[in-house]
Amino acid sequence: MKAVIVLSGGQDSATSLALAVKRYGAKEVAAITFTYSQRHAIEVEYARKLAKRFGVENHNFVSLDFYSSITENALMSKDRAIKKIKGSSCPTSVVEGRNSFFLLSASVWAKKLGATEVWTGVSEADYSGYPDCREKFIKSQQRTIRLALEWPIKIVTPFMHMTKAQEWALADELGILEIIENETVTCYNGILGKGCGKCPACRLRNAGYREFLSKRKSQR
Amino acid sequence: MKAVIVLSGGQDSATSLALAVKRYGAKEVAAITFTYSQRHAIEVEYARKLAKRFGVENHNFVSLDFYSSITENALMSKDRAIKKIKGSSCPTSVVEGRNSFFLLSASVWAKKLGATEVWTGVSEADYSGYPDCREKFIKSQQRTIRLALEWPIKIVTPFMHMTKAQEWALADELGILEIIENETVTCYNGILGKGCGKCPACRLRNAGYREFLSKRKSQR
Repeated sequence: MKAVIVLSGGQDSATSLALAVKRYGAKEVAAITFTYSQRHAIEVEYARKLAKRFGVENHNFVSLDFYSSITENALMSKDRAIKKIKGSSCPTSVVEGRNSFFLLSASVWAKKLGATEVWTGVSEADYSGYPDCREKFIKSQQRTIRLALEWPIKIVTPFMHMTKAQEWALADELGILEIIENETVTCYNGILGKGCGKCPACRLRNAGYREFLSKRKSQR
Repeated sequence: MKAVIVLSGGQDSATSLALAVKRYGAKEVAAITFTYSQRHAIEVEYARKLAKRFGVENHNFVSLDFYSSITENALMSKDRAIKKIKGSSCPTSVVEGRNSFFLLSASVWAKKLGATEVWTGVSEADYSGYPDCREKFIKSQQRTIRLALEWPIKIVTPFMHMTKAQEWALADELGILEIIENETVTCYNGILGKGCGKCPACRLRNAGYREFLSKRKSQR
């Protein structure tokens, strides 16, 4: 096994799964999906379908149920609105330390499988302001995991410096544009594809899509 | 709230809890205890009693049930013997990344409580060979958590460079020697106090105790 892909069922992780499968073949790739009482838990079902779609058979579903016992946020509580926090780069949907838990769990499992790569679809170019999407966090996390596990994990972030529009163009190149468009869920309200169109995640995704379409049009 | 103490119910964490309570007072200290299908789960009950003993009321029990879905080891499986692994510094009881999960969870909760310190009883002087007990891991973990949470967490490790004998002497100074002797569980077989006397954790603990006693005797 070469790589473990953190797969949420959203645009970024689905595109990174396709990229990893193209590089190594589906048999050398495993997927890991987390549940943590997120309000759009339906994404887990889409993650299951996406892994099958790309031929990835080794798919681990890991339940981080403890999360609500250590923190509170609007993503895990339907009573709270998702909006900007004054004086912070983060919206109220921030799940404190989420990527740290994801990457650590994925790395522990990768070591068990004999894999040394963990892929994540995070980006600091077009992002929601979460601190654990930035490259300096990822580099520090990689060093920490290597020290903790004594295992040469490499955290692969293919989209770190790509805009959403560039990610859409990549999906187009990979021949999976329609899958990403129609079979992934990014929306905080759990609505497939274009989503509700109103939440911050939808706005980011849809603005990127429009930018990609207009660039593609002007190039033709 | 000043500090969150990772409390397993063993000698190290119980002594560090007493130390934190002495420094800040019981009202400024919270305890966090983890379950992860460890074979000596009885330690959780001792952790509960220890927190009460030292007057700490804010005690969070966090269940890391997912652990067995990402890794295997002798601590979480009664079918496997605890022994040295050839060519590794670790015994088979290693729970991959355990301290990383503990410190991250404790830090996320600390942020919610408004605390900036997380205490852990790890030591690299007299230790079992686990890589996530070393100071270079702790420093890297602290940096990673700060970046992930944007919160000025300080990981406090009072015993990093203390031997077990020195820890026993500290318990004596704090006036809690009998509590640590009789009300903590370090043994992999879950036996209180002196334990089974045969497992690696008991041997380390009991050798340190004998060394402490003989030094104390020679000083008197």
